Amino acid sequence: MIGRLTIAGLGPGAAAQVTPEVSAALAAASDIFGYGPYITRVPARPGLTLHASDNREELARARAALALAAEGREIAIVSSGDPGVFAMAAAVFEALEDRPDWQALDIRVLPGITAMLAAAARAGAPLAHDFCAINLSDNLKPFALIARRIRAALAGDFVMAFYNPRSLSRPEGFARALAILREGAEPGRPVIFARAVGTPDERVETVPLAEARADMADMRTLVIVGSSTTRRVGRFVYTPRAVR
Amino acid sequence: MIGRLTIAGLGPGAAAQVTPEVSAALAAASDIFGYGPYITRVPARPGLTLHASDNREELARARAALALAAEGREIAIVSSGDPGVFAMAAAVFEALEDRPDWQALDIRVLPGITAMLAAAARAGAPLAHDFCAINLSDNLKPFALIARRIRAALAGDFVMAFYNPRSLSRPEGFARALAILREGAEPGRPVIFARAVGTPDERVETVPLAEARADMADMRTLVIVGSSTTRRVGRFVYTPRAVR
Repeated sequence: MIGRLTIAGLGPGAAAQVTPEVSAALAAASDIFGYGPYITRVPARPGLTLHASDNREELARARAALALAAEGREIAIVSSGDPGVFAMAAAVFEALEDRPDWQALDIRVLPGITAMLAAAARAGAPLAHDFCAINLSDNLKPFALIARRIRAALAGDFVMAFYNPRSLSRPEGFARALAILREGAEPGRPVIFARAVGTPDERVETVPLAEARADMADMRTLVIVGSSTTRRVGRFVYTPRAVR
Repeated sequence: MIGRLTIAGLGPGAAAQVTPEVSAALAAASDIFGYGPYITRVPARPGLTLHASDNREELARARAALALAAEGREIAIVSSGDPGVFAMAAAVFEALEDRPDWQALDIRVLPGITAMLAAAARAGAPLAHDFCAINLSDNLKPFALIARRIRAALAGDFVMAFYNPRSLSRPEGFARALAILREGAEPGRPVIFARAVGTPDERVETVPLAEARADMADMRTLVIVGSSTTRRVGRFVYTPRAVR
């Protein structure tokens, strides 16, 4: 018997944004692993075991889930948003590196609505032209690499989506990112702060870069910085399709 | 009576990847607009009028949909994938530019699973670290800008997702993109060709950059090029979360 592990994306928060294939995978699982707040979004039912763990324990969680799948159980690991974007899928593949036995398991990734898509949809269409996504959390990479990427994104005139702009343990990274942006972008460029999209706490506001402050973001905020062509029309923000 | 226009993402192809909020919007619409092949994915029912149009007519389609919404009807415009990523949402906001009356309509964007998320999920987790998305179609921008962005993405060591790599009318752009990549990236870097993900025609293959050829992509292919850290484990391709 070959065990199965499904890495499933719950989307940003609203049940109406969870895909049917993800709902089906959750309904079929014997055991579901995930960070505590995401696990609470899984409907409870008899026969389902929930394994909640802490935020910083992705690799240990992946190994525990793989070990149980190897026993022949039907396992799901859940992430908020898309599991392949700054989330659990990479931790599972990292856990496979030294375990050829686990590589033989039936492992699949089910995509989800990642935060930048939900945030962009609320604002208008800021990601309608070439863009990049940068994780501002510096607990897995040096800030120098983040700075290099922001400068490259400015050089390429990409729209930028920033994940994890700010956390209690490293509050200064986003302020440094804003300082780099101000060196290379005009002060009127739109900056979208999209907090907790799809939840009752949702709040989306757009300000010019000159007025963007680090304390406008917290750990539930996704930030989108426009390119040189991103503009407002009425209450919306979008990036035109064409550059002439 | 205020008309409503919903711009909805159908995901890459599989019905199981359409979100419930998009399905509900399609069920509530009086009229649905879209490119012919996407319109065929909408379930027919009595009272629903389908307005199929050609691929190159986004702005005319947006204006026709807005005009009908202004009459008080319940309109949906559908895109494949996510409507905000190289798709219909920007055309709608462009159509609003000189029409303050249309700006007062109830307009909303419903996100969908965009092609790069579905492709990445099939391959493993190549987008698990900072990445960018570039539309290689040069009918709305000069190739010089595409080249500048690929060079910037190499300078920033981003994973890259290429939309619309190749079409019958402009087959040479992707070959030029591959040539730029070969100047700036090592020959073993993984390149994923994901064709028609979520449909019966799905085919996903990964080759080293040195073996990537332009004719491996067609207009239904999404291409992902790894960063310097993207690697293979077993049959999967992923980009580790950490850079030390």
